[in-house]
Amino acid sequence: MKIAISGKGGVGKTTITATLSKMFSENDYNIFAVDADPDANLATTLGIPEEEAEKIKPLAELEDVIEEKNDGGGAFISLTPKVDDTLDDYAYNLDNIKFLRMGEIKQGGAGCYCKENSFLRSIVESLLTDKEEIVILDMGAGIEHLSRGTSRAVDILIIVIEASQVSIETAQTVKKMAVELGIPAVKVIANKVFDEDAEELIKDNFSDEEILGFIPFNKEVMMSAMTKGSNEQTYQALKADMEVIYNNLLRGGGSK
Amino acid sequence: MKIAISGKGGVGKTTITATLSKMFSENDYNIFAVDADPDANLATTLGIPEEEAEKIKPLAELEDVIEEKNDGGGAFISLTPKVDDTLDDYAYNLDNIKFLRMGEIKQGGAGCYCKENSFLRSIVESLLTDKEEIVILDMGAGIEHLSRGTSRAVDILIIVIEASQVSIETAQTVKKMAVELGIPAVKVIANKVFDEDAEELIKDNFSDEEILGFIPFNKEVMMSAMTKGSNEQTYQALKADMEVIYNNLLRGGGSK
Repeated sequence: MKIAISGKGGVGKTTITATLSKMFSENDYNIFAVDADPDANLATTLGIPEEEAEKIKPLAELEDVIEEKNDGGGAFISLTPKVDDTLDDYAYNLDNIKFLRMGEIKQGGAGCYCKENSFLRSIVESLLTDKEEIVILDMGAGIEHLSRGTSRAVDILIIVIEASQVSIETAQTVKKMAVELGIPAVKVIANKVFDEDAEELIKDNFSDEEILGFIPFNKEVMMSAMTKGSNEQTYQALKADMEVIYNNLLRGGGSK
Repeated sequence: MKIAISGKGGVGKTTITATLSKMFSENDYNIFAVDADPDANLATTLGIPEEEAEKIKPLAELEDVIEEKNDGGGAFISLTPKVDDTLDDYAYNLDNIKFLRMGEIKQGGAGCYCKENSFLRSIVESLLTDKEEIVILDMGAGIEHLSRGTSRAVDILIIVIEASQVSIETAQTVKKMAVELGIPAVKVIANKVFDEDAEELIKDNFSDEEILGFIPFNKEVMMSAMTKGSNEQTYQALKADMEVIYNNLLRGGGSK
């Protein structure tokens, strides 16, 4: 199963990605958890110690590898570098989870970074098409790491939303892009649902089939966000709330 | 005064950008308000009606203009297209505010978008260096629209944070980038401060000089986020809370 997770910043994408990854891992699935959102910190949210997380090189920075895989660069940009072997080398292992950080494409300065972009897209392609493991991609509000070609390999795109107009607008935009890209299933998880009005707002904007589940507002999760290294606490607090969603996913709830 | 606003997704950058823009406008300042974050909706947050906002073309999509300003493309990419005259043509006027939407650099597919990136960076450069008006840039967590050259023209970078470890981590990363880029003043605004512990966490991580102000958690703002077109309500609710920050900015609080 290949899962991409998107949604507006701040809705809880990374927390949900980490919780699902750990649930899969606890249930003996092997998974790749990929931080594809520069505005996120999946490594520490998964529970990788900060000192260790800092040492994990983002794939975008592996310039030597990029050079090599792209035949040294030059005027023409190879758009299909072979990167499959890179993935296992650069993953950080945590229980049954292999963690990868994509990193940000540098845009400052005057250089051209199309090669790096192409490299990152081919990593996503390799993950989605060559790997047996479950793959979870924590993406930003944009889903630009996906191309028309690789999108068909995504089984489900989950858009995380909260009860606000802006997060719903972002979700609608992402949904439209996903349909255009040909992603077979697009679902939403409603996070931080604080009361019945909030639930109502979600139901007014998405059909029952689209909604993979509701996660109630959880004060414990909010409080533990203030504390460094409290990921285990957050995980325990969220696991129960996400049981239904997890089982839905396993039962192929994504593609029904 | 040229102001750039950054911070983790979901902390309230856009709401704060819109509130400051309207406060400047109400006080007879002419300002450019620039949506430079694809994961945001500054137009509707400012109160531009949705039908109107949809029609505002993002500058990134003005391909003809890009072609023209870049001498028709070709193998060499002109990195300093003249774009000053484009800005007034494409701004949407609302009271004393000229609104511009940067738009997202398309990354899907196989093309090279360095030209478009270069065009957008030169727009930012032109705004920061050629304009008399106050300029507020609503940026994402990344500040990649700024280059080493243009950053010196930014008077103050405001990083919006909330009481969570991840938003503080993002702020530290942005601060480091800003210092490397040579931005003269970097300050934080703490948003959604829900209690004394939250305030304490901010004070533990930033010095008094760095903190431009605290905005208390405001239930009215949260509730109005659920309603379409409630920007005026949000503005009135936030204005009083932001008076001190606004005056700090006017008094050059940014650069003291």
